[in-house]
Amino acid sequence: MQLADIARALGCELRGDGAVEIVDVAAIDDARPATLTFVADPRHASKLATSRAAAVILPRDAPPVRLAALLAPHPYLAFIGAIELFHPPVRGTAPGVHPAAVIGDGTTLGPGTSIGPHAVVGRNVTIGRDAVLHPNVTIYDRVRIGDGFTAHAGVVVREGVEIGDRVTLHAGVVLGSDGFGYLPLPDGNRKIPHIGTVVIEDDVEIGANATIDRAALGATVVGRGSKLDNLVMVGHGCRIGPGCLLAGQVGLGGSTVLGARVMMGGQAGAAGHLTIGDGAQIAAQTGIHRAIPARAQYSGSPAIEGGVWRRVTAAFPRLPELFRRVRRLEQRVGVSPDEPGDE
Amino acid sequence: MQLADIARALGCELRGDGAVEIVDVAAIDDARPATLTFVADPRHASKLATSRAAAVILPRDAPPVRLAALLAPHPYLAFIGAIELFHPPVRGTAPGVHPAAVIGDGTTLGPGTSIGPHAVVGRNVTIGRDAVLHPNVTIYDRVRIGDGFTAHAGVVVREGVEIGDRVTLHAGVVLGSDGFGYLPLPDGNRKIPHIGTVVIEDDVEIGANATIDRAALGATVVGRGSKLDNLVMVGHGCRIGPGCLLAGQVGLGGSTVLGARVMMGGQAGAAGHLTIGDGAQIAAQTGIHRAIPARAQYSGSPAIEGGVWRRVTAAFPRLPELFRRVRRLEQRVGVSPDEPGDE
Amino acid sequence: MQLADIARALGCELRGDGAVEIVDVAAIDDARPATLTFVADPRHASKLATSRAAAVILPRDAPPVRLAALLAPHPYLAFIGAIELFHPPVRGTAPGVHPAAVIGDGTTLGPGTSIGPHAVVGRNVTIGRDAVLHPNVTIYDRVRIGDGFTAHAGVVVREGVEIGDRVTLHAGVVLGSDGFGYLPLPDGNRKIPHIGTVVIEDDVEIGANATIDRAALGATVVGRGSKLDNLVMVGHGCRIGPGCLLAGQVGLGGSTVLGARVMMGGQAGAAGHLTIGDGAQIAAQTGIHRAIPARAQYSGSPAIEGGVWRRVTAAFPRLPELFRRVRRLEQRVGVSPDEPGDE
Repeated sequence: MQLADIARALGCELRGDGAVEIVDVAAIDDARPATLTFVADPRHASKLATSRAAAVILPRDAPPVRLAALLAPHPYLAFIGAIELFHPPVRGTAPGVHPAAVIGDGTTLGPGTSIGPHAVVGRNVTIGRDAVLHPNVTIYDRVRIGDGFTAHAGVVVREGVEIGDRVTLHAGVVLGSDGFGYLPLPDGNRKIPHIGTVVIEDDVEIGANATIDRAALGATVVGRGSKLDNLVMVGHGCRIGPGCLLAGQVGLGGSTVLGARVMMGGQAGAAGHLTIGDGAQIAAQTGIHRAIPARAQYSGSPAIEGGVWRRVTAAFPRLPELFRRVRRLEQRVGVSPDEPGDE
Repeated sequence: MQLADIARALGCELRGDGAVEIVDVAAIDDARPATLTFVADPRHASKLATSRAAAVILPRDAPPVRLAALLAPHPYLAFIGAIELFHPPVRGTAPGVHPAAVIGDGTTLGPGTSIGPHAVVGRNVTIGRDAVLHPNVTIYDRVRIGDGFTAHAGVVVREGVEIGDRVTLHAGVVLGSDGFGYLPLPDGNRKIPHIGTVVIEDDVEIGANATIDRAALGATVVGRGSKLDNLVMVGHGCRIGPGCLLAGQVGLGGSTVLGARVMMGGQAGAAGHLTIGDGAQIAAQTGIHRAIPARAQYSGSPAIEGGVWRRVTAAFPRLPELFRRVRRLEQRVGVSPDEPGDE
Repeated sequence: MQLADIARALGCELRGDGAVEIVDVAAIDDARPATLTFVADPRHASKLATSRAAAVILPRDAPPVRLAALLAPHPYLAFIGAIELFHPPVRGTAPGVHPAAVIGDGTTLGPGTSIGPHAVVGRNVTIGRDAVLHPNVTIYDRVRIGDGFTAHAGVVVREGVEIGDRVTLHAGVVLGSDGFGYLPLPDGNRKIPHIGTVVIEDDVEIGANATIDRAALGATVVGRGSKLDNLVMVGHGCRIGPGCLLAGQVGLGGSTVLGARVMMGGQAGAAGHLTIGDGAQIAAQTGIHRAIPARAQYSGSPAIEGGVWRRVTAAFPRLPELFRRVRRLEQRVGVSPDEPGDE
């Protein structure tokens, strides 16, 4: 494809030779010849000097470079367009039910839906149009699923779970397992029955081997457009708002409520029965143990406000030095370390 | 069902109108009309003023409320009874082996057992009565399983594992994978063969996608009545005592021993070859790196005693302030921060 | 087997009665009679006084003990040999494709390969000789796998992934799921297409339910001989060098690069786009947020150098004491805690 054609397809301004032949897209660090790359962050622009790429997508106000360029208001977004131009999404599976799949009584499948070998769909399930169930997926009874659903191999959706449109579950995801709820009694831990469900709203994507437990009563909810990474654990009765991003191995205790567009870094956790406000940003490995206000940034375990955390953790390695300095002061002033104070 | 009938079924004392019609149970916050709710914690009693529930289960000594009430010595336990009254546990699967299941030679299945489609059971396995194997479960050779077993979809039980009565494995659980044991040699990491096994005692429940490794020699043991949450990782050769509760994403290094009724919060971890005493309580995200005495409470990474931890973490955000105050003292006293001290 | 025969098979020097009959290997703590055990660490030698083992493997320079002994330059390595003598690795599965497996068009399987029931292998896959695919494994299209491959039940390998020789994937492993990459736009999180792949080099072993994401562009790489424990999460575009050991629940953010023989303890994590040098040792629960030099030891979250960390965390529980001592000094010197300082 010639660069000028790509410029036209992506709506970018062309700078340089439009006849350059492009065969693929590539990251700037390992671009092969005749590839198109991109630079969104000006700090990486210096890499263009040595990149073997044939052309680059740049911000509109970028200074001239030696390569032919496409200028875009949002270079990363334009590059996504270029990826899709060279690698259009492939369905991979033809519509229809594989003979080695098992579909229960009373279940309805929308047009264009593909059910892979050894997938099992229970009774009284409804699945919308254009769904793809890969091999070895298990859908229990009475599940309701919208249009454009993708379940990768090994996904398990327990009974009664509700799933919106355009939801993607990566391999090994488990939706609707019983929550971790027991009443400690003298003769042992009595299980609390879990008669609630899980509701996954539209445009949600959930990473490999993540688990989302059903509520004891009511529903665990993942809000519209939220994205959960691999091995995330969502406890029973949580309510995650729209547009949230939860990175790998995040864990949420039961009944915790996240507002809209909350971001949590990898391995962060929140205790149960807490509220995290809209747009809050929680750093990796943070441990949330109390309510977090909207738009706040928190870090650390236990979590403290991000600005305080940065100053405190910068001082932390010098704690032994501080002990030494206080001891020196005590010697000079003539105070014993053991002398009682009022703090 | 009328409230008076429920009172009789649960052995509760009725206060108010026994003719009130109840159609379901509900949490106090989102109760629909004609539902029965409960209040175990007096702090939540004020919610009764606005709840749409028709009746409530209360402690015996509770002050009068505007709703009809059932009085119980243990309101939460009575509410569990009410849940089971309106939602009796459903088996969901008829006894028998689905034609699309594969059962190996020499394997015996107890009466009442149900094997779902695409489940695979190896050779010389014994499974007791009334087991339910959901679809796509894999049981390797020579596994022994007691009565009342439930394995949700995608569960994997490796060869030779022993499982007691009334054990529930949620979707994606892996029992008996090889432990993480390698001998670092100059030419690479030499694998230590794992010829041990896993023993799961009676009444254990294990959460979705949790993994329990087999011992190199001997057995990894999960004690009677212990409950493990989703994504928990139990290393090779661990011995978990009876009645323990391990919350989501907890990790135990190899050969660590937990006593009875140990509780570990989410994302807590313990290094290998440690002992955690009976009744110890380990807070979420704690990192255990030495033995913990019985009934102790520990928090933090590295773990310190819980009371100390609370005081230390309360002081922690003020560390920069302390540096400033020490600097001020040094200026006043005329000491240099760099002056050598003896601590 | 007589002890003298074992000495000959393992190339060990015999000390004591070579006619002792040995029926199995055992750990020193729970050795039954007529078993062979080993002591690699002299601190455990005292256990020999009470062990019921019949013989022991010891270092060459060990002092005499009451049991018959085999002397070896590397006792642990010799013990591995003894394990394999009494428990030779069993394949467990005959070569061939189970009739309940599904193999796609254009796929080639090497000689000696065994495909279990309900395994699904896609189109245009190549698998080398002597592979074992256990039940319910799913291999997507265009995957290339070398010789001696083992995939335990429930493993999922997504399209186009490349796997070397002698690779073992434990139950529930997911290779090649889409990375967690979204462009936050005003109207929601736009997914970044993942057209890259995963490359697993020779002699890699990956623990149960671990997940390794495909790169957006290029490849996520796990280097030759590296071993990953259960529930490890490797983000898109990471490059893990040869001989690394990543313990349970470790998480790596996208595009992070590990050198050779890096060790990371359980639940440790690294942010994305970082470099961890050859031979670095990262303690359990550490949080890496900047580049780590070769052969360094780091601990803590955020990570600091291991020696500093030990001193700082030893001082940490005494922080409230330090506040009290500073307050005492202020009172003595006549400074207010609120007085401004210059630090």
